[in-house]
Amino acid sequence: MKTIISKDNPKIKYVSKLLLSSSMRKSENCFVVEGLRLCNDALLSDAKIIYAFFTADFISKYENLCSKIQQKALESFETSYDVLKKISSTKTPQGVVLLCECFQNLPPDFKNHILMLENIQNPLNMGTIFRTAEAFGINDIIITGDCCDAYSPKVTRGSMGAIFRLNINFENDVNALFDECKTNGIITCASSPNENSENILNIDFSSSPYLMAIGNEANGLTQNVINLCDKTVTIPMKGNAESLNAATSAAVLMWEMTKSF
Amino acid sequence: MKTIISKDNPKIKYVSKLLLSSSMRKSENCFVVEGLRLCNDALLSDAKIIYAFFTADFISKYENLCSKIQQKALESFETSYDVLKKISSTKTPQGVVLLCECFQNLPPDFKNHILMLENIQNPLNMGTIFRTAEAFGINDIIITGDCCDAYSPKVTRGSMGAIFRLNINFENDVNALFDECKTNGIITCASSPNENSENILNIDFSSSPYLMAIGNEANGLTQNVINLCDKTVTIPMKGNAESLNAATSAAVLMWEMTKSF
Repeated sequence: MKTIISKDNPKIKYVSKLLLSSSMRKSENCFVVEGLRLCNDALLSDAKIIYAFFTADFISKYENLCSKIQQKALESFETSYDVLKKISSTKTPQGVVLLCECFQNLPPDFKNHILMLENIQNPLNMGTIFRTAEAFGINDIIITGDCCDAYSPKVTRGSMGAIFRLNINFENDVNALFDECKTNGIITCASSPNENSENILNIDFSSSPYLMAIGNEANGLTQNVINLCDKTVTIPMKGNAESLNAATSAAVLMWEMTKSF
Repeated sequence: MKTIISKDNPKIKYVSKLLLSSSMRKSENCFVVEGLRLCNDALLSDAKIIYAFFTADFISKYENLCSKIQQKALESFETSYDVLKKISSTKTPQGVVLLCECFQNLPPDFKNHILMLENIQNPLNMGTIFRTAEAFGINDIIITGDCCDAYSPKVTRGSMGAIFRLNINFENDVNALFDECKTNGIITCASSPNENSENILNIDFSSSPYLMAIGNEANGLTQNVINLCDKTVTIPMKGNAESLNAATSAAVLMWEMTKSF
């Protein structure tokens, strides 16, 4: 394994830039993960590992894991703790950072429930939604509109590695997507807290696969997506709260979609 | 209204210290809220307002609100934007900050469902749980063990003002609390993802009032609380996810407790 001793090493500079720039992650088609748990998730997934960086301490503590990552990675490096800090987004890095290629995901499986996110802006919400989708067995996520970057460190960390196991599709053409849903007989629901929306409790999610669309934290779904959907649905509320947090309402909706399976 | 022009004004120094110190909030029995929405929530609640601070811009924009807050507050001050920034925890303060007295809450109503939080450490989780409790009509929250400070800026903000409308009790003596639950015929549930726990879907929450206990993000409930509870319950999961985020699992549990009412 090669050693990197300088923070000015071009690979370190490249990864530290990627950590901060979602547009660069997009153009370079790769992203950064770190820490024991997420890097193990990356190893167990189909993700391509481009570079792996370890501290000597981490290697001696997790010899077996490091050797497996090394076999999978195109190039592996040992770095000092200070150098590793340059490519970490945590205060006290655990000693392992990977540069992975973004996923080439499969088209969604229209025989199962699907979650669609439009204009979700907060990476903590997106990460939590991924984690919850996995827990409830929803495998297909469609991301559309002006969402935060699904490959940002906050999302991958908040997802607890779910990002490596879900099938996430980025879809710019919502009209084509809804046409496909129609062709495949999947019922499309817009989550919209509105007095004309159907109570989520009145929907029989076991009767058909459903696509559930969830919108922006402040403004909800766009009118375009609401119009494209077969139904609008809402979670009935009792208190003064104007609305639930986006990740919370996504959780309740996904729970209702999947609990009887 | 008096004017404060210096950041070294003793009241400004006092409030800026309170903003950062949970132990000082505890010993002084007061807390800081800011922004249009939360300050309006404080006005509409029974909270005692000790000091109110406004910028001139805010006063001219929200004259009616400011005059109502002024009537309720013991003392009100106009400050410059720079001085107000000293007592704000946001990057771009909206121009209003209140110092409120901590609530003197009523004992919980044992005729309704109750939520108990033990050792919840993340203020974002606590704030989200408060917001969700309000949305689902759970009014009584009991906080026990080593929780984060319910009066911190992150919690009040995350709660979307629910903190001003919920009945929050701090309870050090859990044995006494569970005795009271028994006397009042309330069934106590420990949320615990464990193979011997009952599936949350098999519990008829309309048959009796329930207390639902939710534990620490990483370690769950203490064995002491699990032993004190009548039942342990869990949310069935499908995917690889080890567990749901604490705020998410609290949301699903509260939804199941309240949805049929």
